[in-house]
Amino acid sequence: MATIINGKEVAAKIRAELKKEVEELIKNGIYPKLAVIMVGNDSASAVYVRNKSKACNEIGIEFEEFLMEENTTREQLLELIDKLNNRKDINGILLQSPIPKHLDIREAFNAINYKKDVDGFHPINVGKLAIGEDCFISCTPAGVIKMLEEYNIPIEGKHAVVIGRSNIVGKPLSQCLLNKNATVTICHSRTKNLEEITKQADILVAAIGKPKFVTENMVKQNAVVIDVGINRTEDGKLVGDVDYEKVEPKATYITPVPGGVGPMTIAMLMTNVVKAAKNLK
Amino acid sequence: MATIINGKEVAAKIRAELKKEVEELIKNGIYPKLAVIMVGNDSASAVYVRNKSKACNEIGIEFEEFLMEENTTREQLLELIDKLNNRKDINGILLQSPIPKHLDIREAFNAINYKKDVDGFHPINVGKLAIGEDCFISCTPAGVIKMLEEYNIPIEGKHAVVIGRSNIVGKPLSQCLLNKNATVTICHSRTKNLEEITKQADILVAAIGKPKFVTENMVKQNAVVIDVGINRTEDGKLVGDVDYEKVEPKATYITPVPGGVGPMTIAMLMTNVVKAAKNLK
Repeated sequence: MATIINGKEVAAKIRAELKKEVEELIKNGIYPKLAVIMVGNDSASAVYVRNKSKACNEIGIEFEEFLMEENTTREQLLELIDKLNNRKDINGILLQSPIPKHLDIREAFNAINYKKDVDGFHPINVGKLAIGEDCFISCTPAGVIKMLEEYNIPIEGKHAVVIGRSNIVGKPLSQCLLNKNATVTICHSRTKNLEEITKQADILVAAIGKPKFVTENMVKQNAVVIDVGINRTEDGKLVGDVDYEKVEPKATYITPVPGGVGPMTIAMLMTNVVKAAKNLK
Repeated sequence: MATIINGKEVAAKIRAELKKEVEELIKNGIYPKLAVIMVGNDSASAVYVRNKSKACNEIGIEFEEFLMEENTTREQLLELIDKLNNRKDINGILLQSPIPKHLDIREAFNAINYKKDVDGFHPINVGKLAIGEDCFISCTPAGVIKMLEEYNIPIEGKHAVVIGRSNIVGKPLSQCLLNKNATVTICHSRTKNLEEITKQADILVAAIGKPKFVTENMVKQNAVVIDVGINRTEDGKLVGDVDYEKVEPKATYITPVPGGVGPMTIAMLMTNVVKAAKNLK
C-alpha cells in the first residue's frame, strides 16, 4: 500500500506559513500584491483565476484583476503589461493562459519584468533555473519538489523519469530534479520503448495530459509516482495521467488527483508573490 | 568498425561557408567583429584565444583582444563589458574562462548584452534554448548537433545519454538533443548504476573531463559515441573522456580526440559571431 501524498495538506501548511510571513511584511510596510491579466472568456481560466484570488485573500496578498476583451490587440496587451511592470505597488504579474489565438503568449510572457514574473516563464528565470541561480521557478514543478521534500522522499542519486516536456511542467521540473542531484530522463511523444524507460524510474512523473496513460506495467515496484495530469472525463470526473487504482499498489508514494499536485501549484504561486515582494524591499 | 566523425573536416567546411558569407556581409557594409576579454595569465587560455583569433582572421571577422591584469577589480571588468556592450562596431563579446578567483564569472557573463553573447552563457540565451526560441547556443553543444546532422545521424526518437551536467556542455546539449526530439537522460557524479544507463544509449555523449572514463562495457553495440573531453595525460598527449581504442569497435560512429568535437567549438563560435552581425543589421 502506497503512502498517499496529501497535496491539500502540504499546500494548507504552506499557505498558513505564508499568512504569518505576510503579516510580518505588512507590519514593515510591505504589501505583497498580485496582478492577474485575463484576456477573453475562457471558462476554465475564470475558475483558476477565482481560486488564485481566494488564495491571495486568505493569505493577505492584495489582488487586482485585469479583464481584457477577446478582441484585445497586441499593443493593448503589451501596454497593460508595461504599465504593471512600472507600478510600484504590484510585485507579481500573472498572465492567465490561454489567451486568444491572434495574440502571441510567448511575446507577452517575455514582456513581463522578470522580477515580477511569479509564474517563472520569462527566459531569464528559465535560464537561471538551468544554470542553478536564484530565480522564480514555475509553480507546478516547484510544488512537486516541495511535496517530495515534505515527505522526506530522497531525490539525490535517484533515477527520475519525467513523461512530458512542456515549458510549464516537464522541462523545468527536469531542471529542478537535476538541481537536486537526480539522474533525469525526459520522455515525450517521440520516445520509443517508453515502458522500458519508465520502469526504471525511482521517481516517475506523469505530465502529459492523457487520462490514465500510465498503467501498472509502466511502473517499477516501490516507485514514487507523481501525477501532474488533471483531465476531465466524459462523466465530469477529474482523473490524472496515472491509472491510480492499478498503479497505487506498486508505489511507495503516490499523489492522488484531485488533491495531489493541483493544490501545490497555487501555494507555490503565493510563495513566489511573497518572494517577489521581499526581493523588492 | 566505426565511422570516424571528422570534426576537423566539418569545421573546415563551416568556416569556408562563413568566409563566403562574411564577404557578402562586408559588401553590404556589415563588418562582423568579435571582442575577447582575457583576465590574468592563464597559459591554456592564451592558446585558446590565439586559436579564436586565427579563425576570425581566416574568415574575415575582425578581432579585438582586451587583456586585463590578474588584479583587475570587479568594477573594472564590468566597466569594460559595459563599454563593449555599447560599442556599435562589436557584434560578439567573449569572456575567456577561467578568470581570477576574486572575480565572479557568472556576474560577468550576466553583464554581457545577450544580443552579443556569442558564447550563449547569458540566462536569456539559456532560457530561450530551453523554451525553444531562437538564441545563441553554447558553442560545443551546437557543434555536437551540427556534427550529427552533417553525418546524417538520426536524433529523433533516439535515446541520448549525456554524462556530465556542466552549464557549458552537458545541460545545454541535453536541451539541444531534446529540441531535436531525442529521449534524453542526464547522468553525473551522483548517478548510481551509470553503466546500466549508458548501455541504453543510442547516442552517448561524454562530457565529464575524466580521461578514458567511458569503457567498452558502458557502451551499447552500434551506439554513436561523442567525446567532448579533452584531457592531457602525464606524457603530454591529448585523450578524451572515452577509451577510444576499446570503444571504437562497438560504435557505428565515434569522434576522435583530438580532431573531433574540439574544432567544432570554434567553428560554432564563428557562426554565432556572424549570426550576431546579421541580427544587428
